[in-house]
Amino acid sequence: MNTETILKGACIIGQSGGPTSVINASAYGAIRAGLDSPAITRVYGAAHGIRGVLDDQLYDMNQEDPAELAYLRNTPSSELGSCRYKMKDPAVDDTDYKRILEIFRKYDVRYFFYIGGNDSMDTCNKISKYCQSVGYDCRVMGIPKTIDNDLFGTDHCPGYGSAARYIATSCMEVYKDSVVYDNAQVTVVEIMGRDAGWLTAASALATHFGAGPDLIYLPEVDFDAERFYADVERILSEKKKVLIAVSEGIHYADGALVSEAQVSATDGFGHAQLGGLAARLAEQLKQHTGAKVRGIELSLLQRCGAHLASAADLDEAEMAGRVAVESAVEGKTDCMVAFRCERSGGYRCETVLLPLSQVANYVRKVPLEWINADGNGLTQELVDYVLPLIQGVPDRPTESSLPRYAKLKKILAK
Amino acid sequence: MNTETILKGACIIGQSGGPTSVINASAYGAIRAGLDSPAITRVYGAAHGIRGVLDDQLYDMNQEDPAELAYLRNTPSSELGSCRYKMKDPAVDDTDYKRILEIFRKYDVRYFFYIGGNDSMDTCNKISKYCQSVGYDCRVMGIPKTIDNDLFGTDHCPGYGSAARYIATSCMEVYKDSVVYDNAQVTVVEIMGRDAGWLTAASALATHFGAGPDLIYLPEVDFDAERFYADVERILSEKKKVLIAVSEGIHYADGALVSEAQVSATDGFGHAQLGGLAARLAEQLKQHTGAKVRGIELSLLQRCGAHLASAADLDEAEMAGRVAVESAVEGKTDCMVAFRCERSGGYRCETVLLPLSQVANYVRKVPLEWINADGNGLTQELVDYVLPLIQGVPDRPTESSLPRYAKLKKILAK
Repeated sequence: MNTETILKGACIIGQSGGPTSVINASAYGAIRAGLDSPAITRVYGAAHGIRGVLDDQLYDMNQEDPAELAYLRNTPSSELGSCRYKMKDPAVDDTDYKRILEIFRKYDVRYFFYIGGNDSMDTCNKISKYCQSVGYDCRVMGIPKTIDNDLFGTDHCPGYGSAARYIATSCMEVYKDSVVYDNAQVTVVEIMGRDAGWLTAASALATHFGAGPDLIYLPEVDFDAERFYADVERILSEKKKVLIAVSEGIHYADGALVSEAQVSATDGFGHAQLGGLAARLAEQLKQHTGAKVRGIELSLLQRCGAHLASAADLDEAEMAGRVAVESAVEGKTDCMVAFRCERSGGYRCETVLLPLSQVANYVRKVPLEWINADGNGLTQELVDYVLPLIQGVPDRPTESSLPRYAKLKKILAK
Repeated sequence: MNTETILKGACIIGQSGGPTSVINASAYGAIRAGLDSPAITRVYGAAHGIRGVLDDQLYDMNQEDPAELAYLRNTPSSELGSCRYKMKDPAVDDTDYKRILEIFRKYDVRYFFYIGGNDSMDTCNKISKYCQSVGYDCRVMGIPKTIDNDLFGTDHCPGYGSAARYIATSCMEVYKDSVVYDNAQVTVVEIMGRDAGWLTAASALATHFGAGPDLIYLPEVDFDAERFYADVERILSEKKKVLIAVSEGIHYADGALVSEAQVSATDGFGHAQLGGLAARLAEQLKQHTGAKVRGIELSLLQRCGAHLASAADLDEAEMAGRVAVESAVEGKTDCMVAFRCERSGGYRCETVLLPLSQVANYVRKVPLEWINADGNGLTQELVDYVLPLIQGVPDRPTESSLPRYAKLKKILAK
């Protein structure tokens, strides 16, 4: 899959899936490396991911002011726009692939970089294989991104460390807030993560530093309501305050999501209720324990809270983008940039390339041995794993003590 | 009410009402000034506000390590504990007052400092007047605190600037996150403030810097659902994305809270639904517009998000605590420390003392002339008022890139 020739041509960089605090740092790393490479003749940003390719909506990044572009590194969310577009199997319907090829030919695109999670690596893989099958020489590289941290084959994913720092910090603050009154109080914090509990597990860092959840529930373990009530009542009787972190994806043994189960908490008619899992569990605990309750959903804040990005995450995200471009220019293709890390004797992180077909569509979960025997907390191994990823307070640009984001011109090509 | 004599004796410092990011900075300012004053023989912290006095639960602050105590400045929430205890009119029932006097005598308390909002200033006022009425020489000072910013007679309240910086920053991040997809999307952010809209108004700072709410609704203006839908639909048709900030206290013309009104959104039976105002409005807008919707409640995060405290707020909060003690030692009593600020030609803030009877139980609202004619946004005057209060990024102590909070010994007196 590697070629040794120097391939000259334009590149497209796209962003896909849910935004994060550092996906733009990866975009910046790739755009900057593309602009700096003699092999790459033009750098295009796809508007709304692969949709921008299909719709011929490409931003000409060569026309951006370099100083303004540098602000991208500290701008949260997906500045080029994102999409959730599932590519069909080309054997079934190759319409989109023909269109992509048409656009690639129109702009002489020889490099395609796609920043995203599992679905995006699948898109990347399909485009790469299609280009190979029709003999169109285009180097395709995936750049990992997901706060969910569930991509296969990499130590961790860019975006996770910053979200973890946000979650740990917020849990510490909520903990301090939740213990001030002298009455019994239960606080439930709902954290993202449908299939994997990495984000919720990060709340264990707050507990590690003495101001975090007493109970943590991940989707890796079946949720048992009776044990849950018993856990809460035990801690309530011990210290009158209980802080609970739950993943949005927790489910009963039969697979039913706790957030979607029918409950008769309020109206007695069993109607499904509005409001998230945190509000629902809080209401159930209020009826069970009589304590004052509060449900808090970290919602979008945890994935776009760039003001709490970790320097480690920012640097690694930018590195992943840069390495993708540099590796492709050197002849690599059909791969995703992944991280291999060393934690003993100080944290070190280096990049490796994994074949796209290996990573696409697999979900990496929290190892069960990192979850305690009661299924309501994490072990020291988890803390040791996450802690290096949240390190470093970056020096972020501000304007009047508020974040200063990139203001791109976004001039469409042609 | 001023006396010229040097009054020697112990002091009690208490915290009351909802915690904030900087109420401990005020406590630190007062405790430190108390420890440093030759007139003050002992510094006690009341556990859970006035309840700690009634229950004889006083922490001996002289036994705390000074270096550890300094961490209080950057520790969110009420470290001494808080309460929501309404004092009776002593003319009706003076039981509590007699008990407070008993404790004051037991510890030779000659100085009482109470940090809190409207209700706390009422408590402070009643205790002060009672001590005067029985001829017990005790100097009583209120130290303002409330993220709601609704205390009478002061330019602003310690706690508000930091909450405003948290709200503006979070709204900027949510804005960036809410515009990435190419579909119609409405996002509703619910912000604290039952009676006054100061907190919600702070979201206008995000708009001022180009990444904030399109529509802002405060409790100062009656909420009109039809105009609200029309506002949202107009902006949706213009740009496909609408970010809305609402105060939890918005109400219809008849005074009914929007958050409590019966709606038939989901089940058709008109049952009151769980979940906050944001979830409720989002659901209603989904049905009205067909757009993708999301409701986000900033919840406790906005009042305990000390990692986004403003240096101006922190410094002023500490100053308020220090000035209260220093003024009392100089002979002042029966007052609250307030701020008088100058904004033209650079921001300056100085303290003044207001009689407690003037400030207790009044609520200061956002001036109607700072709200736009359509009742869905703020004017430049509001921005000019708030902006100085969020200035400065403080250098906060961290441990492994997470906040380092004070670890007090909290040794009970006697």
